[in-house]
Amino acid sequence: MLEELKEKVCRANLDLVRHGLVIFTWGNVSAIDRASGLVVIKPSGVSYDNMKPSDMVVVDLDGKVVEGELNPSSDTPTHVELYKAFPNIGGVVHTHSTFATAWAQAGEDIPRLGTTHADYFHDAIPCTRSMKKSEVFGEYEKETGRVIIERFKDMNPDDTPAVLVRNHGPFAWGTDADNAVHNAVVLEEVAKMAYLAVDIHVAAQFKGIYLADFSPRMNKYLIEKHYSRKHGPGAYYGQKKK
Amino acid sequence: MLEELKEKVCRANLDLVRHGLVIFTWGNVSAIDRASGLVVIKPSGVSYDNMKPSDMVVVDLDGKVVEGELNPSSDTPTHVELYKAFPNIGGVVHTHSTFATAWAQAGEDIPRLGTTHADYFHDAIPCTRSMKKSEVFGEYEKETGRVIIERFKDMNPDDTPAVLVRNHGPFAWGTDADNAVHNAVVLEEVAKMAYLAVDIHVAAQFKGIYLADFSPRMNKYLIEKHYSRKHGPGAYYGQKKK
Amino acid sequence: MLEELKEKVCRANLDLVRHGLVIFTWGNVSAIDRASGLVVIKPSGVSYDNMKPSDMVVVDLDGKVVEGELNPSSDTPTHVELYKAFPNIGGVVHTHSTFATAWAQAGEDIPRLGTTHADYFHDAIPCTRSMKKSEVFGEYEKETGRVIIERFKDMNPDDTPAVLVRNHGPFAWGTDADNAVHNAVVLEEVAKMAYLAVDIHVAAQFKGIYLADFSPRMNKYLIEKHYSRKHGPGAYYGQKKK
Amino acid sequence: MLEELKEKVCRANLDLVRHGLVIFTWGNVSAIDRASGLVVIKPSGVSYDNMKPSDMVVVDLDGKVVEGELNPSSDTPTHVELYKAFPNIGGVVHTHSTFATAWAQAGEDIPRLGTTHADYFHDAIPCTRSMKKSEVFGEYEKETGRVIIERFKDMNPDDTPAVLVRNHGPFAWGTDADNAVHNAVVLEEVAKMAYLAVDIHVAAQFKGIYLADFSPRMNKYLIEKHYSRKHGPGAYYGQKKK
Repeated sequence: MLEELKEKVCRANLDLVRHGLVIFTWGNVSAIDRASGLVVIKPSGVSYDNMKPSDMVVVDLDGKVVEGELNPSSDTPTHVELYKAFPNIGGVVHTHSTFATAWAQAGEDIPRLGTTHADYFHDAIPCTRSMKKSEVFGEYEKETGRVIIERFKDMNPDDTPAVLVRNHGPFAWGTDADNAVHNAVVLEEVAKMAYLAVDIHVAAQFKGIYLADFSPRMNKYLIEKHYSRKHGPGAYYGQKKK
Repeated sequence: MLEELKEKVCRANLDLVRHGLVIFTWGNVSAIDRASGLVVIKPSGVSYDNMKPSDMVVVDLDGKVVEGELNPSSDTPTHVELYKAFPNIGGVVHTHSTFATAWAQAGEDIPRLGTTHADYFHDAIPCTRSMKKSEVFGEYEKETGRVIIERFKDMNPDDTPAVLVRNHGPFAWGTDADNAVHNAVVLEEVAKMAYLAVDIHVAAQFKGIYLADFSPRMNKYLIEKHYSRKHGPGAYYGQKKK
Repeated sequence: MLEELKEKVCRANLDLVRHGLVIFTWGNVSAIDRASGLVVIKPSGVSYDNMKPSDMVVVDLDGKVVEGELNPSSDTPTHVELYKAFPNIGGVVHTHSTFATAWAQAGEDIPRLGTTHADYFHDAIPCTRSMKKSEVFGEYEKETGRVIIERFKDMNPDDTPAVLVRNHGPFAWGTDADNAVHNAVVLEEVAKMAYLAVDIHVAAQFKGIYLADFSPRMNKYLIEKHYSRKHGPGAYYGQKKK
Repeated sequence: MLEELKEKVCRANLDLVRHGLVIFTWGNVSAIDRASGLVVIKPSGVSYDNMKPSDMVVVDLDGKVVEGELNPSSDTPTHVELYKAFPNIGGVVHTHSTFATAWAQAGEDIPRLGTTHADYFHDAIPCTRSMKKSEVFGEYEKETGRVIIERFKDMNPDDTPAVLVRNHGPFAWGTDADNAVHNAVVLEEVAKMAYLAVDIHVAAQFKGIYLADFSPRMNKYLIEKHYSRKHGPGAYYGQKKK
């Protein structure tokens, strides 16, 4: 059943490791077959080292297992909610990738600071609200899907295919499993660049302290010396050009 | 004697290197055989490059060498104290992994900021108090174990299997050597995520400076341009789809 | 046509990946044959995995394709503008390398803080102004070249062979494709070092908080203990020297 | 002449690359044969890719080339000054390793924050003063050695075998070339840990903002949920234990 999709989902899960987004079993990829309404997803807590397509689990849109020996990912109900609410998506990824998770832990949206962001995500990457006690102790993973959907009430999930679940980590999605993984990789890089840019910006606000005080500390003549040591007629770094 | 345990401990020590937690000889793993009360531990200052199971040293719960040609790790008395005080643990790891050590050097507990933390550690990763002069110049490594145990007086070491020794670095433990290494890897990742999240949070407090001033600096129209360059009917990035 | 240059440009594009400056298709290298006024450039949105010299596209200084099956990089008009304005350069590189892009996103020049910078770049790495709406919705990539050239009105592009396009990322150039890639690698390292130095400098301003309060937190006797554990007559770390 | 020492010095130079301290030609290692007073050092600006022992250059303690086809490292006069002033050292290393260089660019000593530091360096890693114009435009590389020696006037170079040259980068030394490389690797790790620890410390000062405000943002019940999802009788993460 859905053997081709199982291969794609299995390979997409391994791609998460290859891209450095996942250690141990901290991630999962699924894909949906829209014709049958069936979702193929990684099994829960299984090592990536010898994962194979036949380990993938097939569930329906109620989250019930239709085929597979193993338990599906414990995050399966979140994936299912997203497939039901976002009709154009074909794949979903969840990771604890370092920089995206840090933004989720800080409880901040990732602001749009550069074209790398805008090339893939139309809006800021939104961070969900804190979940209520009743949601956490109720159908927790399904409710996680619901707070994501709530956050996208006035947003287009096709234009901005990622979210930060507060205090938890990112979900990304796409037209299929591969595209969802691609978006998860971009999200992590965008999260890293935004982290660094924010840090530089905050430092640059300390102008009185910083730019006026710091830059001159490298003397003009030291700059001239080093530049001319390597360039121009008096250069003496390296070997003579033949 | 305990040949199987020596193999496990040797392999667990090499896993520290594989996971990037250790350079040179800066780490050690031990495991206990609860039946005999004997501890197998890495030798002191030996290179990981050609370490083999027969190099492992066997000590008793007084820290006395029972078998082995080489000196045991200089941190052996710390390991032994932990095995005596925490009856359910089967393995102990000490590293100078970068981010966990940075928290130890800052003298701060690692706060619980995310589910990655809570999946493995029930409480904040505690940092021990400064050691007294008499402790440092007395039985230093044994006293190191004692300040850890003191820190866990009102904590459960099975629920929160790691600690930061102030100005020094992390110890982690687990049900066996492999589980202790696993927890040490998670600790380092949790320490990194917490470091980043704290930095983002501090930056976000500068709202007057930052969010109101910075976000608008990427003009709306630049966002629209880049998004539409790659997506939608007017996209011209890449090759024509066939 | 220009087969040798195509090989150099293809290899230089792959070098971007090898040096960790590029993920997916986020970068491009070109080189010019000054005799014929023709530019060889990477095709747009093509995976690096099986890119070969014959995929390179040849364009003239109007940006028109002269040879090649594939679309040239969407950034081609920017490259062409630079070749026209800077007569001594032979190669151009564009990347979204992490640290240089972060400075571009912060909208700050990279200040001259060290000799590593001065060995390669005479001036601060300049950041361009925000582009106007008419520029963004006009000939965007050509206008990108023009804001770079405008920024170098009073600067020498041969002495400072790199720029940050605001909210976008770096361009670097050089005497040929290889030299341009070399400068792009140095730029990223210089951007990283400057980021870290600025952070340390800001922290060091908190002297009242920091140096007076923090340094003493590692007690003198803990220092003596650790130093003497490894060095001098009482050392007991490691194995006995034979 | 000194063939064995040339092999050691060549291998030590390649070790710099292996440890990630050097890109391109940005580093050099030398060693001294105290009996003859001759120094073996890396040639200037030569790629590490095909460097061989016979490329090493032999100089005397006046910095004059005694044997070798190639120009010695342009930093040779700095190495020579150190060998003359510090009688117990046998090897010297210069790199632009990222974190140590960042501290040099910030113009700050690396404070003693942890036992990793104290295991190798007795004192803070000192940063030299700014060099005067006459020093920079005089015998620059020799004067670089002299400001290092001046900085160690009241310090023991055997106990603290490293220095930061302001706005430039680190020099480290040791009993021989290998030991000097070892110290350079430790210096970089110590510089990184100190950078991170200082950042955490500064953030922790914002207690009113941070600890009181941030920690509670991960609700207690979310912690309980996640911990119990993986641990204890109600755990449902992963597969059933057999």
